[in-house]
Amino acid sequence: MSGTWGNKFQISIFGESHGEAVGITLCGIPAGLEIDMDFIKSELLRRAGGHDQFSTPRLEKDEFKFISGIFNGKASGSPICCIIPNTNVRSKDYDKIKNFMRPSHADYTAYIKYGGHADYRGGGHFSGRITAGLVVAGAIAKMYLKQKGISISGKVVTENLDEKILKAKADLDSVGGKVEIVAEGVPIGVGEPFFHSVESVMSQLLFSIPGVKGVEFGAGFALADMRGSEANDEFYIEDGQVKTRTNNAGGINGGISNGMPIVARVAFRPTTSIKKPQNTIDIKDMEPVTYAVEGRHDPCIARRGVVVAESAAAIALAELML
Amino acid sequence: MSGTWGNKFQISIFGESHGEAVGITLCGIPAGLEIDMDFIKSELLRRAGGHDQFSTPRLEKDEFKFISGIFNGKASGSPICCIIPNTNVRSKDYDKIKNFMRPSHADYTAYIKYGGHADYRGGGHFSGRITAGLVVAGAIAKMYLKQKGISISGKVVTENLDEKILKAKADLDSVGGKVEIVAEGVPIGVGEPFFHSVESVMSQLLFSIPGVKGVEFGAGFALADMRGSEANDEFYIEDGQVKTRTNNAGGINGGISNGMPIVARVAFRPTTSIKKPQNTIDIKDMEPVTYAVEGRHDPCIARRGVVVAESAAAIALAELML
Amino acid sequence: MSGTWGNKFQISIFGESHGEAVGITLCGIPAGLEIDMDFIKSELLRRAGGHDQFSTPRLEKDEFKFISGIFNGKASGSPICCIIPNTNVRSKDYDKIKNFMRPSHADYTAYIKYGGHADYRGGGHFSGRITAGLVVAGAIAKMYLKQKGISISGKVVTENLDEKILKAKADLDSVGGKVEIVAEGVPIGVGEPFFHSVESVMSQLLFSIPGVKGVEFGAGFALADMRGSEANDEFYIEDGQVKTRTNNAGGINGGISNGMPIVARVAFRPTTSIKKPQNTIDIKDMEPVTYAVEGRHDPCIARRGVVVAESAAAIALAELML
Amino acid sequence: MSGTWGNKFQISIFGESHGEAVGITLCGIPAGLEIDMDFIKSELLRRAGGHDQFSTPRLEKDEFKFISGIFNGKASGSPICCIIPNTNVRSKDYDKIKNFMRPSHADYTAYIKYGGHADYRGGGHFSGRITAGLVVAGAIAKMYLKQKGISISGKVVTENLDEKILKAKADLDSVGGKVEIVAEGVPIGVGEPFFHSVESVMSQLLFSIPGVKGVEFGAGFALADMRGSEANDEFYIEDGQVKTRTNNAGGINGGISNGMPIVARVAFRPTTSIKKPQNTIDIKDMEPVTYAVEGRHDPCIARRGVVVAESAAAIALAELML
Repeated sequence: MSGTWGNKFQISIFGESHGEAVGITLCGIPAGLEIDMDFIKSELLRRAGGHDQFSTPRLEKDEFKFISGIFNGKASGSPICCIIPNTNVRSKDYDKIKNFMRPSHADYTAYIKYGGHADYRGGGHFSGRITAGLVVAGAIAKMYLKQKGISISGKVVTENLDEKILKAKADLDSVGGKVEIVAEGVPIGVGEPFFHSVESVMSQLLFSIPGVKGVEFGAGFALADMRGSEANDEFYIEDGQVKTRTNNAGGINGGISNGMPIVARVAFRPTTSIKKPQNTIDIKDMEPVTYAVEGRHDPCIARRGVVVAESAAAIALAELML
Repeated sequence: MSGTWGNKFQISIFGESHGEAVGITLCGIPAGLEIDMDFIKSELLRRAGGHDQFSTPRLEKDEFKFISGIFNGKASGSPICCIIPNTNVRSKDYDKIKNFMRPSHADYTAYIKYGGHADYRGGGHFSGRITAGLVVAGAIAKMYLKQKGISISGKVVTENLDEKILKAKADLDSVGGKVEIVAEGVPIGVGEPFFHSVESVMSQLLFSIPGVKGVEFGAGFALADMRGSEANDEFYIEDGQVKTRTNNAGGINGGISNGMPIVARVAFRPTTSIKKPQNTIDIKDMEPVTYAVEGRHDPCIARRGVVVAESAAAIALAELML
Repeated sequence: MSGTWGNKFQISIFGESHGEAVGITLCGIPAGLEIDMDFIKSELLRRAGGHDQFSTPRLEKDEFKFISGIFNGKASGSPICCIIPNTNVRSKDYDKIKNFMRPSHADYTAYIKYGGHADYRGGGHFSGRITAGLVVAGAIAKMYLKQKGISISGKVVTENLDEKILKAKADLDSVGGKVEIVAEGVPIGVGEPFFHSVESVMSQLLFSIPGVKGVEFGAGFALADMRGSEANDEFYIEDGQVKTRTNNAGGINGGISNGMPIVARVAFRPTTSIKKPQNTIDIKDMEPVTYAVEGRHDPCIARRGVVVAESAAAIALAELML
Repeated sequence: MSGTWGNKFQISIFGESHGEAVGITLCGIPAGLEIDMDFIKSELLRRAGGHDQFSTPRLEKDEFKFISGIFNGKASGSPICCIIPNTNVRSKDYDKIKNFMRPSHADYTAYIKYGGHADYRGGGHFSGRITAGLVVAGAIAKMYLKQKGISISGKVVTENLDEKILKAKADLDSVGGKVEIVAEGVPIGVGEPFFHSVESVMSQLLFSIPGVKGVEFGAGFALADMRGSEANDEFYIEDGQVKTRTNNAGGINGGISNGMPIVARVAFRPTTSIKKPQNTIDIKDMEPVTYAVEGRHDPCIARRGVVVAESAAAIALAELML
């Protein structure tokens, strides 16, 4: 059940952080769509760390290779499989601490769920690295959406994030962040009431991203403190088009897009891996231990998370529009 | 695509607010589960309005009838279909305003999506009334979970809600609210990484509830402003059991339950239907109109939303545990 | 898992032979499709027994009632739920023999699978009566396909069937039969290679029909004894259209429709319920028993099976074309 | 939609005959299952051609490589991705005839469906070579089933097949064949009534295999000519176990396994590629052409199809049992 998602834009992810490769297979892209390799590359670069003082020193080259589904530079209509080999892997970092359950990591839950058989190196299949596949699929979804006149953009909306990151880094700590995604040009009528509402489908993918702990649309949680007269988005007509004066609903009424920009915000928790010593347990000895997580980690996943959240939103819209 | 959800605990909803009936079909419940009719009745009562000054005067009797899948008081193993006939329907309330697109309602998106063929009376299939079926399925999911030692509870966590409701009512307005759901006793290992994480599956259902615009788990959006050392939930051992000292992750690590209570919070927008005059459009004449929504409406859906959100959470957990 | 099928034309069946009702919910039909009630009625009549000497004396009136999804005579875009109440039920026929496992019936497998909780009366959820819901969904699928220029027809292709039925009836026995389904007007390009081939999707539904034990397309099993030069359907051009001179592939190449008629043949086993005494077991006493199945049974399900097989084919095509 | 199948044992195929590689991703295998690489190798060898006078001279080395999901020789619990690189590819064979629509091949339907964008070399994604991935997944499914005491075996049941093959080969022709699959040790209660019956799920996968045009269970099509008294499988008790004296139902009653061997038979059409000249069309010039298919082709796919059909059956059972 774990790795596959979607009915029309189907994705199937695989890979572990320190295994052979990570990757994704995607189905449903119309034959003939031109695949812009440079765009995929640039999207993967946005996701990769190691480019500045704000992110992990693990240089992820993310050299990707399509092994099916693309013919003469275009989608051929058959499943597209993309492989991103793992390089620059330092597995030794993890071996000695494999029984230490890192707080708020998936170490413990994976250990119990998979009976100790999961690949623990670098978080294995739970690693944020797996999202590289999502970014490839998201880039292709964006190409498809672009043809339909839709653009997806995202940015960090957490105040003073750069400053916070540098301070946290100095303290061997990490910080969280908030990301906003906007989809413009979505036609009226995308999404269904109830289980396949834009919110339902998009949130399922957004919550798939490791570290995401909150998702809201439009005014979101602020709506809980508003009155109807304030929250309702009044309709008006401009140049023969129906619009709303405000967009507290985030472009979605009754689960269906209303033609206004679709706006989602995502809360990323602080990176769980920190160099500061923490108390936890040794699962084998069932004893308390104190240790500082080693390895190369990003002090804030929200920044790299922008392109991943955009990808999730793009995939969700492609699924709903195909 | 619209009305069906789930792979193992499958639900299929149907009905319109002013049609014959609303209802649900559910599959996947193990044969032999005793079906407690009184409990279903009490859950539907929690959802129904008209009981006090805080809610709609539309008395929903919600008399339900199982027409399949229950034999000798127990789940027989075959699909369970429950019908809740619509009574106390005043369709005239809606006829005269059928071309007025109520702000933030689904009137406009449904009109465009279904080419004017949707049943517009009382919101049709977009009505909150459709959630009665979800509550029936949720009640049965709770019975299943109870057998596994799991309890689901919910409450409004919006400050001074009763006071706000009475004031808004006096102002012909409505208010939003926040609901917290807690699932206790969930074993370690429920959920999958990525697309079928507890967060992903639960949020898909929670965002299916009309009026929900935000979902967060554990400390949720507050995590965006926290540091890792503060947000991480340290593991410790007590009486041979692994626990965490805090529960900022809401009982979920890497998408998988960690044995701590699962905590979700849901933001309900204010009721879109308000008696206060609003500006909007007449979709047929494509002209601006001002009108006050008539009919019997609840000034705050969050209160009745508690049992619906509990139901969504229960269905999500049943899906992940079956 | 049991009662739901489809991604685009989703169906969800429910009901037991001697319960309150049988029925179906269907999603995915485009809003605005006119629903021809007389056609549904006539299709249900084709399925119902009791009309002549060849079929069961149990008169199934099959009065159906749509309780959602139809508004002003057209599909509204929301889930369509149809109920067919059970009338003319004689449950006493079954009570005394509830522990006798009728040979080749589902009595035994259901007893074990559902731990004795299944409704055993008249086959419960395993009854051929459940196919009434399929026929309703099939009738609506046919209306949708008709708009696209597609017609579905079926007939019994078993030699001398009427004669065989009368003889078998006289011998307190039953007979099998073969049914052929033809879909004309299917455009080129319907279906996918591999898991969602026309054959795969259609066979999944055809084998859902109680009593179906074989499905073949085009020349089918005869192809196993043919040579390539004989079996291959040569392409030629007529009036600017690509056609094939023969249709051994049954209109499907590589899982995809090629514009020729789609031809499927279905083998129905003889009715399992026969009045002739048979040896079997009493599951409670775990002892051999001999008994003759009482009640009103059809000596040949293949004849009533024609419309059910047509329905399955129509639903499969609707799923692949939506 | 095309490449993904299953809810619990999920598979996702990819690849083209003359592309980089073919492969499969599978999810749902319990963590800890030992992966027997030698068995996978031997299964792929059964599928590969070039070993004797009865099959294609294209030597398929089928060197496979797992790039995820296996850790220390065991299933880790995360998605298993297996790649089988394409070697020994002679694309030139196909270039000059790319506009010739080979009779009964998918050339024409793929050309229309994918607007000329499909990889036409060697059948592209429609090639039988894609079944190598199915065989890998099937081998792993067999390992899982073996642990549960279930064995799957298959054989050609077409009379004098070797003789027919040699004669056909001499005539530059091909022949069809019939394959029988038997699953022994399947516990009682596997499968569901209707859409997820053993027959429905198994047939969907069996019809996914290129060249399969018929599927039957138990006595299958012969049942159409039988009487109920002859076809019914009488139950009896032996050593405290319920058995049936005959197995005309192929081990399945009401869609559910009854403890007897599950028996399926599959009709493979003759290989469509034959060296004998055939009449067909040039799709670009829209003109008739006559040509003999070149390249290296198997005169009978049924023989190599045995292991593929076994794999499909094993995957179907794993899906229903997980």
